[in-house]
Amino acid sequence: MLLSGGLDSATALALAIRDGFECHALSVNYGQRHQAELDAARRVADALGATDHRVFRLDLQTFGGSALTDSSIAVPTDGVAKAIPITYVPARNTILLSLALAWAEVLNADAVVIGANAVDYSGYPDCRPEYLQAFEKMANLATRSAVEGRALSILSPLVSMSKAQIILAGIEAGVDFALTVSCYQADQLGAACGVCDACRIRRAGFVAAAVTDPTRYIPR
Amino acid sequence: MLLSGGLDSATALALAIRDGFECHALSVNYGQRHQAELDAARRVADALGATDHRVFRLDLQTFGGSALTDSSIAVPTDGVAKAIPITYVPARNTILLSLALAWAEVLNADAVVIGANAVDYSGYPDCRPEYLQAFEKMANLATRSAVEGRALSILSPLVSMSKAQIILAGIEAGVDFALTVSCYQADQLGAACGVCDACRIRRAGFVAAAVTDPTRYIPR
Repeated sequence: MLLSGGLDSATALALAIRDGFECHALSVNYGQRHQAELDAARRVADALGATDHRVFRLDLQTFGGSALTDSSIAVPTDGVAKAIPITYVPARNTILLSLALAWAEVLNADAVVIGANAVDYSGYPDCRPEYLQAFEKMANLATRSAVEGRALSILSPLVSMSKAQIILAGIEAGVDFALTVSCYQADQLGAACGVCDACRIRRAGFVAAAVTDPTRYIPR
Repeated sequence: MLLSGGLDSATALALAIRDGFECHALSVNYGQRHQAELDAARRVADALGATDHRVFRLDLQTFGGSALTDSSIAVPTDGVAKAIPITYVPARNTILLSLALAWAEVLNADAVVIGANAVDYSGYPDCRPEYLQAFEKMANLATRSAVEGRALSILSPLVSMSKAQIILAGIEAGVDFALTVSCYQADQLGAACGVCDACRIRRAGFVAAAVTDPTRYIPR
Protein backbone atom coordinates (compact mmCIF):
# COMPACT_ATOMS: atom_id res chain seq x y z
CA MET A 1 0.00 0.00 0.00
CA LEU A 2 1.27 3.39 -0.92
CA LEU A 3 0.29 5.66 1.96
CA SER A 4 0.88 9.39 1.56
CA GLY A 5 -0.90 10.64 4.66
CA GLY A 6 -3.61 12.27 2.57
CA LEU A 7 -7.32 11.60 2.43
CA ASP A 8 -7.33 9.23 -0.53
CA SER A 9 -4.64 6.76 0.50
CA ALA A 10 -6.04 6.68 4.07
CA THR A 11 -9.38 5.61 2.61
CA ALA A 12 -7.73 3.05 0.32
CA LEU A 13 -5.92 1.57 3.35
CA ALA A 14 -9.13 1.40 5.40
CA LEU A 15 -10.99 -0.32 2.55
CA ALA A 16 -8.18 -2.85 2.05
CA ILE A 17 -8.06 -3.69 5.76
CA ARG A 18 -11.86 -4.01 5.83
CA ASP A 19 -11.61 -6.38 2.85
CA GLY A 20 -9.26 -8.64 4.79
CA PHE A 21 -5.89 -7.69 3.31
CA GLU A 22 -2.81 -7.75 5.52
CA CYS A 23 -1.49 -4.29 4.67
CA HIS A 24 2.15 -3.23 4.57
CA ALA A 25 2.16 0.54 4.20
CA LEU A 26 4.90 2.39 2.34
CA SER A 27 5.41 6.14 2.53
CA VAL A 28 8.11 7.86 0.55
CA ASN A 29 10.06 10.87 1.68
CA TYR A 30 11.02 12.19 -1.74
CA GLY A 31 11.88 15.68 -0.61
CA GLN A 32 8.30 16.99 -0.87
CA ARG A 33 7.72 20.36 0.75
CA HIS A 34 4.79 18.97 2.75
CA GLN A 35 6.80 16.75 5.08
CA ALA A 36 3.89 16.90 7.52
CA GLU A 37 2.14 14.32 5.37
CA LEU A 38 4.72 11.75 6.48
CA ASP A 39 3.76 12.24 10.14
CA ALA A 40 0.14 11.97 9.07
CA ALA A 41 0.90 8.70 7.27
CA ARG A 42 2.36 7.26 10.45
CA ARG A 43 -0.69 8.27 12.48
CA VAL A 44 -3.05 6.85 9.86
CA ALA A 45 -1.15 3.54 9.62
CA ASP A 46 -1.26 3.19 13.42
CA ALA A 47 -4.92 4.17 13.74
CA LEU A 48 -6.14 1.82 11.02
CA GLY A 49 -3.96 -1.12 12.01
CA ALA A 50 -1.52 -1.55 9.15
CA THR A 51 0.70 -4.60 9.70
CA ASP A 52 3.82 -2.57 9.02
CA HIS A 53 4.72 0.96 7.96
CA ARG A 54 7.98 2.07 6.39
CA VAL A 55 9.20 5.41 5.15
CA PHE A 56 11.52 5.06 2.17
CA ARG A 57 13.83 7.97 1.51
CA LEU A 58 14.91 9.24 -1.89
CA ASP A 59 15.57 12.75 -3.02
CA LEU A 60 13.62 13.89 -6.06
CA GLN A 61 14.90 17.41 -5.41
CA THR A 62 17.91 16.11 -7.40
CA PHE A 63 15.79 16.36 -10.53
CA GLY A 64 13.38 19.15 -9.50
CA GLY A 65 10.88 20.24 -12.12
CA SER A 66 7.94 20.63 -9.72
CA ALA A 67 6.65 23.11 -7.14
CA LEU A 68 6.59 20.21 -4.67
CA THR A 69 10.29 19.39 -5.02
CA ASP A 70 11.83 22.75 -5.92
CA SER A 71 11.47 25.40 -3.22
CA SER A 72 12.07 28.18 -5.77
CA ILE A 73 8.79 27.32 -7.57
CA ALA A 74 5.69 28.56 -5.71
CA VAL A 75 2.63 26.36 -5.16
CA PRO A 76 -0.27 27.91 -7.14
CA THR A 77 -3.09 29.11 -4.89
CA ASP A 78 -5.46 30.81 -7.33
CA GLY A 79 -7.72 27.88 -8.14
CA VAL A 80 -7.68 24.52 -9.91
CA ALA A 81 -6.80 25.01 -13.59
CA LYS A 82 -7.46 22.70 -16.54
CA ALA A 83 -3.85 22.12 -17.59
CA ILE A 84 -1.49 19.80 -15.70
CA PRO A 85 -0.25 22.04 -12.86
CA ILE A 86 3.31 22.79 -11.78
CA THR A 87 2.74 20.65 -8.68
CA TYR A 88 2.98 17.61 -10.97
CA VAL A 89 6.20 15.78 -9.99
CA PRO A 90 7.90 14.16 -13.01
CA ALA A 91 7.35 10.39 -12.95
CA ARG A 92 6.39 10.43 -9.27
CA ASN A 93 3.76 7.70 -9.28
CA THR A 94 5.96 5.54 -11.52
CA ILE A 95 8.77 5.83 -8.99
CA LEU A 96 6.45 5.24 -6.02
CA LEU A 97 4.80 2.23 -7.66
CA SER A 98 8.22 0.82 -8.60
CA LEU A 99 9.38 0.99 -5.00
CA ALA A 100 6.12 -0.62 -3.89
CA LEU A 101 6.62 -3.30 -6.55
CA ALA A 102 10.05 -4.11 -5.13
CA TRP A 103 8.73 -4.46 -1.59
CA ALA A 104 5.67 -6.38 -2.81
CA GLU A 105 7.92 -8.91 -4.51
CA VAL A 106 10.05 -9.38 -1.39
CA LEU A 107 6.87 -9.77 0.72
CA ASN A 108 5.33 -12.15 -1.83
CA ALA A 109 2.30 -9.85 -1.89
CA ASP A 110 -0.77 -10.28 -4.10
CA ALA A 111 -1.25 -6.62 -4.88
CA VAL A 112 0.04 -3.10 -4.72
CA VAL A 113 -2.69 -0.66 -3.68
CA ILE A 114 -2.60 3.01 -4.62
CA GLY A 115 -5.19 5.65 -3.72
CA ALA A 116 -5.00 7.35 -7.12
CA ASN A 117 -8.13 9.13 -8.24
CA ALA A 118 -9.02 10.52 -11.66
CA VAL A 119 -12.29 12.33 -10.96
CA ASP A 120 -11.83 15.19 -8.46
CA TYR A 121 -8.08 15.48 -9.00
CA SER A 122 -5.37 17.78 -10.28
CA GLY A 123 -5.08 16.28 -13.75
CA TYR A 124 -1.85 14.40 -13.09
CA PRO A 125 -1.32 11.93 -15.97
CA ASP A 126 -0.06 9.22 -13.63
CA CYS A 127 -3.39 8.98 -11.80
CA ARG A 128 -5.42 7.84 -14.81
CA PRO A 129 -6.78 4.28 -15.18
CA GLU A 130 -5.02 3.73 -18.53
CA TYR A 131 -1.69 4.58 -16.90
CA LEU A 132 -2.33 2.27 -13.95
CA GLN A 133 -3.30 -0.58 -16.28
CA ALA A 134 -0.10 -0.09 -18.31
CA PHE A 135 1.94 -0.13 -15.08
CA GLU A 136 0.29 -3.41 -14.06
CA LYS A 137 1.07 -4.97 -17.42
CA MET A 138 4.69 -3.85 -17.20
CA ALA A 139 4.98 -5.06 -13.59
CA ASN A 140 3.84 -8.52 -14.61
CA LEU A 141 6.75 -8.75 -17.03
CA ALA A 142 9.27 -7.22 -14.62
CA THR A 143 9.58 -9.53 -11.68
CA ARG A 144 10.75 -13.01 -10.83
CA SER A 145 7.41 -13.76 -9.17
CA ALA A 146 5.56 -12.84 -12.36
CA VAL A 147 7.83 -15.00 -14.51
CA GLU A 148 7.28 -17.85 -12.06
CA GLY A 149 3.52 -17.50 -12.51
CA ARG A 150 2.50 -15.34 -9.57
CA ALA A 151 0.65 -12.36 -11.04
CA LEU A 152 0.50 -9.09 -9.12
CA SER A 153 -2.41 -6.68 -9.27
CA ILE A 154 -2.16 -2.92 -9.13
CA LEU A 155 -5.36 -1.97 -7.29
CA SER A 156 -6.71 1.57 -7.36
CA PRO A 157 -10.07 1.23 -5.61
CA LEU A 158 -10.77 4.98 -5.66
CA VAL A 159 -9.87 5.74 -9.26
CA SER A 160 -13.45 6.31 -10.46
CA MET A 161 -14.94 7.77 -7.27
CA SER A 162 -15.73 11.42 -6.64
CA LYS A 163 -14.04 13.08 -3.65
CA ALA A 164 -17.37 13.08 -1.83
CA GLN A 165 -17.79 9.35 -2.42
CA ILE A 166 -14.26 8.74 -1.14
CA ILE A 167 -14.98 10.72 2.01
CA LEU A 168 -18.21 8.83 2.69
CA ALA A 169 -16.55 5.46 2.01
CA GLY A 170 -13.66 6.42 4.29
CA ILE A 171 -15.95 7.40 7.15
CA GLU A 172 -17.86 4.14 6.80
CA ALA A 173 -14.56 2.21 6.92
CA GLY A 174 -13.44 4.06 10.05
CA VAL A 175 -11.04 6.72 8.78
CA ASP A 176 -10.52 9.72 11.05
CA PHE A 177 -9.84 12.40 8.44
CA ALA A 178 -8.59 14.76 11.16
CA LEU A 179 -5.41 12.63 11.10
CA THR A 180 -4.82 13.19 7.38
CA VAL A 181 -2.95 16.00 5.64
CA SER A 182 -3.63 16.88 1.99
CA CYS A 183 -2.21 20.41 1.76
CA TYR A 184 0.83 20.90 -0.51
CA GLN A 185 2.25 23.47 1.85
CA ALA A 186 1.00 22.28 5.23
CA ASP A 187 2.92 23.70 8.17
CA GLN A 188 5.06 21.46 10.37
CA LEU A 189 2.07 20.56 12.53
CA GLY A 190 -0.04 19.65 9.50
CA ALA A 191 -2.26 22.74 9.39
CA ALA A 192 -3.47 23.44 5.85
CA CYS A 193 -3.21 26.58 3.71
CA GLY A 194 -6.77 26.24 2.38
CA VAL A 195 -5.94 27.68 -1.05
CA CYS A 196 -3.69 25.22 -2.91
CA ASP A 197 -5.32 22.77 -5.34
CA ALA A 198 -5.13 19.91 -2.84
CA CYS A 199 -6.90 22.01 -0.20
CA ARG A 200 -9.54 23.26 -2.64
CA ILE A 201 -10.36 19.78 -3.94
CA ARG A 202 -10.48 18.37 -0.40
CA ARG A 203 -12.65 21.15 0.96
CA ALA A 204 -15.11 20.89 -1.95
CA GLY A 205 -15.31 17.14 -1.27
CA PHE A 206 -16.42 17.67 2.33
CA VAL A 207 -18.99 20.22 1.17
CA ALA A 208 -20.33 17.86 -1.51
CA ALA A 209 -20.45 14.97 0.98
CA ALA A 210 -22.26 17.20 3.50
CA VAL A 211 -19.73 16.17 6.13
CA THR A 212 -18.11 18.56 8.60
CA ASP A 213 -14.55 19.30 7.40
CA PRO A 214 -12.17 18.33 10.23
CA THR A 215 -9.15 19.97 8.55
CA ARG A 216 -7.14 22.40 10.68
CA TYR A 217 -6.47 25.47 8.56
CA ILE A 218 -3.68 27.99 9.12
CA PRO A 219 -5.35 31.20 10.40
CA ARG A 220 -5.10 33.97 7.81
CA MET B 1 21.34 7.05 -20.04
CA LEU B 2 21.51 4.56 -17.26
CA LEU B 3 25.21 3.98 -16.65
CA SER B 4 26.18 1.22 -14.24
CA GLY B 5 29.92 1.19 -14.79
CA GLY B 6 29.76 -2.23 -16.41
CA LEU B 7 30.63 -3.34 -19.91
CA ASP B 8 27.15 -3.12 -21.42
CA SER B 9 26.10 0.38 -20.36
CA ALA B 10 29.56 1.73 -21.28
CA THR B 11 29.04 0.38 -24.79
CA ALA B 12 25.49 1.77 -24.95
CA LEU B 13 26.82 5.20 -23.93
CA ALA B 14 29.58 5.08 -26.55
CA LEU B 15 27.11 4.10 -29.28
CA ALA B 16 24.68 6.88 -28.27
CA ILE B 17 27.44 9.51 -28.30
CA ARG B 18 28.66 8.22 -31.67
CA ASP B 19 25.09 8.52 -32.98
CA GLY B 20 24.98 12.18 -32.01
CA PHE B 21 22.99 12.08 -28.78
CA GLU B 22 23.79 14.56 -26.03
CA CYS B 23 24.02 12.09 -23.16
CA HIS B 24 23.14 12.74 -19.53
CA ALA B 25 24.37 9.74 -17.57
CA LEU B 26 22.62 8.51 -14.43
CA SER B 27 24.13 6.03 -12.02
CA VAL B 28 22.25 4.80 -9.00
CA ASN B 29 23.78 3.96 -5.66
CA TYR B 30 21.09 1.57 -4.45
CA GLY B 31 23.19 -0.08 -1.78
CA GLN B 32 24.71 -2.64 -4.12
CA ARG B 33 27.67 -4.56 -2.72
CA HIS B 34 29.80 -3.69 -5.76
CA GLN B 35 30.16 0.03 -5.03
CA ALA B 36 33.28 0.00 -7.20
CA GLU B 37 31.00 0.08 -10.23
CA LEU B 38 30.02 3.64 -9.31
CA ASP B 39 33.64 4.79 -9.54
CA ALA B 40 33.85 2.95 -12.84
CA ALA B 41 30.75 4.76 -14.08
CA ARG B 42 32.35 8.13 -13.32
CA ARG B 43 35.52 7.16 -15.19
CA VAL B 44 33.52 5.87 -18.18
CA ALA B 45 31.31 8.99 -18.33
CA ASP B 46 34.42 11.20 -18.28
CA ALA B 47 36.35 9.14 -20.83
CA LEU B 48 33.48 8.95 -23.33
CA GLY B 49 32.39 12.56 -22.94
CA ALA B 50 28.95 12.37 -21.35
CA THR B 51 27.42 15.86 -21.02
CA ASP B 52 26.61 15.27 -17.39
CA HIS B 53 26.86 12.45 -14.85
CA ARG B 54 24.87 12.15 -11.65
CA VAL B 55 24.77 9.50 -8.96
CA PHE B 56 21.31 9.14 -7.43
CA ARG B 57 21.18 7.56 -4.00
CA LEU B 58 18.44 5.29 -2.72
CA ASP B 59 18.70 2.35 -0.41
CA LEU B 60 17.26 -0.91 -1.71
CA GLN B 61 18.82 -2.66 1.28
CA THR B 62 15.58 -1.50 2.98
CA PHE B 63 13.75 -4.20 1.04
CA GLY B 64 16.57 -6.73 0.56
CA GLY B 65 15.66 -9.95 -1.22
CA SER B 66 18.85 -10.18 -3.28
CA ALA B 67 22.47 -11.20 -2.85
CA LEU B 68 23.41 -7.78 -4.21
CA THR B 69 21.53 -5.81 -1.53
CA ASP B 70 21.61 -8.17 1.47
CA SER B 71 25.10 -8.86 2.78
CA SER B 72 23.87 -12.03 4.53
CA ILE B 73 23.12 -13.68 1.15
CA ALA B 74 26.24 -14.91 -0.66
CA VAL B 75 26.85 -14.23 -4.36
CA PRO B 76 26.80 -17.61 -6.16
CA THR B 77 30.15 -18.50 -7.72
CA ASP B 78 29.59 -22.01 -9.04
CA GLY B 79 28.47 -21.20 -12.56
CA VAL B 80 25.58 -19.60 -14.44
CA ALA B 81 22.36 -21.53 -13.76
CA LYS B 82 19.16 -21.64 -15.80
CA ALA B 83 16.80 -20.25 -13.13
CA ILE B 84 16.66 -16.56 -12.21
CA PRO B 85 19.55 -16.23 -9.75
CA ILE B 86 19.57 -14.78 -6.22
CA THR B 87 21.51 -11.78 -7.57
CA TYR B 88 18.25 -10.63 -9.18
CA VAL B 89 17.23 -7.42 -7.33
CA PRO B 90 13.43 -7.11 -7.02
CA ALA B 91 12.12 -4.49 -9.47
CA ARG B 92 15.58 -2.98 -9.94
CA ASN B 93 15.34 -2.03 -13.60
CA THR B 94 11.82 -0.69 -13.08
CA ILE B 95 13.12 1.58 -10.32
CA LEU B 96 16.18 2.62 -12.34
CA LEU B 97 14.12 3.33 -15.47
CA SER B 98 11.57 5.28 -13.38
CA LEU B 99 14.30 7.53 -12.01
CA ALA B 100 15.69 7.98 -15.51
CA LEU B 101 12.18 8.78 -16.74
CA ALA B 102 11.88 11.55 -14.13
CA TRP B 103 15.18 13.11 -15.14
CA ALA B 104 14.40 12.66 -18.84
CA GLU B 105 11.16 14.57 -18.41
CA VAL B 106 12.89 17.42 -16.59
CA LEU B 107 15.59 17.51 -19.31
CA ASN B 108 12.98 17.32 -22.08
CA ALA B 109 14.90 14.34 -23.45
CA ASP B 110 13.90 12.24 -26.44
CA ALA B 111 14.90 8.90 -25.01
CA VAL B 112 16.05 6.89 -22.05
CA VAL B 113 18.84 4.50 -22.98
CA ILE B 114 19.54 1.30 -21.05
CA GLY B 115 22.26 -1.25 -21.76
CA ALA B 116 20.01 -4.22 -21.01
CA ASN B 117 20.86 -7.42 -22.81
CA ALA B 118 18.84 -10.61 -23.11
CA VAL B 119 21.27 -12.95 -24.87
CA ASP B 120 24.40 -13.58 -22.77
CA TYR B 121 22.80 -12.54 -19.49
CA SER B 122 21.74 -13.81 -16.10
CA GLY B 123 18.09 -14.40 -16.94
CA TYR B 124 16.78 -11.33 -15.15
CA PRO B 125 13.15 -10.79 -16.25
CA ASP B 126 13.59 -7.02 -16.41
CA CYS B 127 16.17 -7.24 -19.20
CA ARG B 128 13.84 -8.83 -21.76
CA PRO B 129 12.54 -6.92 -24.82
CA GLU B 130 8.88 -7.53 -23.90
CA TYR B 131 9.47 -5.95 -20.50
CA LEU B 132 11.22 -2.93 -22.01
CA GLN B 133 8.42 -2.44 -24.53
CA ALA B 134 5.83 -2.55 -21.74
CA PHE B 135 7.84 0.01 -19.77
CA GLU B 136 7.92 2.32 -22.78
CA LYS B 137 4.18 2.03 -23.23
CA MET B 138 3.58 2.80 -19.56
CA ALA B 139 6.05 5.71 -19.64
CA ASN B 140 4.17 7.28 -22.52
CA LEU B 141 1.02 7.38 -20.38
CA ALA B 142 2.83 8.54 -17.24
CA THR B 143 4.27 11.95 -17.94
CA ARG B 144 3.15 15.46 -18.71
CA SER B 145 5.40 15.52 -21.78
CA ALA B 146 3.71 12.39 -23.15
CA VAL B 147 0.24 13.81 -22.55
CA GLU B 148 1.33 16.99 -24.31
CA GLY B 149 2.37 14.95 -27.36
CA ARG B 150 6.09 14.46 -26.81
CA ALA B 151 6.70 10.72 -26.93
CA LEU B 152 9.70 9.24 -25.18
CA SER B 153 11.56 6.15 -26.39
CA ILE B 154 13.14 3.52 -24.20
CA LEU B 155 16.17 2.48 -26.24
CA SER B 156 18.02 -0.75 -25.52
CA PRO B 157 20.51 -0.97 -28.39
CA LEU B 158 22.24 -4.07 -27.00
CA VAL B 159 19.21 -6.16 -26.14
CA SER B 160 19.64 -8.68 -28.98
CA MET B 161 23.44 -8.71 -29.20
CA SER B 162 25.73 -11.42 -27.90
CA LYS B 163 28.35 -10.40 -25.34
CA ALA B 164 31.04 -10.80 -27.99
CA GLN B 165 29.15 -8.51 -30.37
CA ILE B 166 28.78 -5.93 -27.59
CA ILE B 167 32.52 -6.04 -26.89
CA LEU B 168 33.41 -5.62 -30.55
CA ALA B 169 30.90 -2.77 -30.99
CA GLY B 170 32.23 -1.10 -27.84
CA ILE B 171 35.83 -1.28 -29.00
CA GLU B 172 34.85 0.18 -32.37
CA ALA B 173 33.05 3.05 -30.60
CA GLY B 174 36.06 3.76 -28.40
CA VAL B 175 35.27 2.11 -25.08
CA ASP B 176 38.24 1.28 -22.86
CA PHE B 177 36.89 -1.80 -21.11
CA ALA B 178 39.72 -1.62 -18.58
CA LEU B 179 37.73 1.23 -17.02
CA THR B 180 34.61 -0.88 -16.54
CA VAL B 181 33.64 -3.13 -13.63
CA SER B 182 31.14 -5.97 -14.06
CA CYS B 183 31.92 -8.14 -11.02
CA TYR B 184 29.18 -8.45 -8.37
CA GLN B 185 31.74 -8.54 -5.61
CA ALA B 186 34.52 -6.40 -7.00
CA ASP B 187 36.94 -5.12 -4.39
CA GLN B 188 37.17 -1.42 -3.57
CA LEU B 189 39.64 -0.85 -6.38
CA GLY B 190 37.44 -2.63 -8.91
CA ALA B 191 39.35 -5.89 -9.17
CA ALA B 192 37.06 -8.77 -10.13
CA CYS B 193 36.43 -12.14 -8.44
CA GLY B 194 36.38 -14.04 -11.74
CA VAL B 195 33.80 -16.57 -10.57
CA CYS B 196 30.44 -14.80 -10.11
CA ASP B 197 27.93 -14.91 -12.98
CA ALA B 198 28.81 -11.40 -14.12
CA CYS B 199 32.52 -12.30 -14.31
CA ARG B 200 31.87 -15.59 -16.07
CA ILE B 201 29.61 -14.02 -18.71
CA ARG B 202 32.07 -11.16 -19.26
CA ARG B 203 35.11 -13.40 -19.51
CA ALA B 204 33.37 -15.75 -21.96
CA GLY B 205 32.49 -12.69 -24.06
CA PHE B 206 36.13 -11.65 -24.41
CA VAL B 207 37.06 -15.22 -25.34
CA ALA B 208 34.27 -15.42 -27.96
CA ALA B 209 35.25 -12.01 -29.36
CA ALA B 210 38.91 -13.09 -29.51
CA VAL B 211 39.85 -9.90 -27.69
CA THR B 212 42.36 -9.71 -24.83
CA ASP B 213 40.46 -9.43 -21.54
CA PRO B 214 41.65 -6.24 -19.79
CA THR B 215 39.87 -7.10 -16.52
CA ARG B 216 41.97 -6.98 -13.36
CA TYR B 217 41.22 -10.10 -11.36
CA ILE B 218 41.76 -10.52 -7.62
CA PRO B 219 44.72 -12.93 -7.24
CA ARG B 220 43.60 -16.27 -5.79
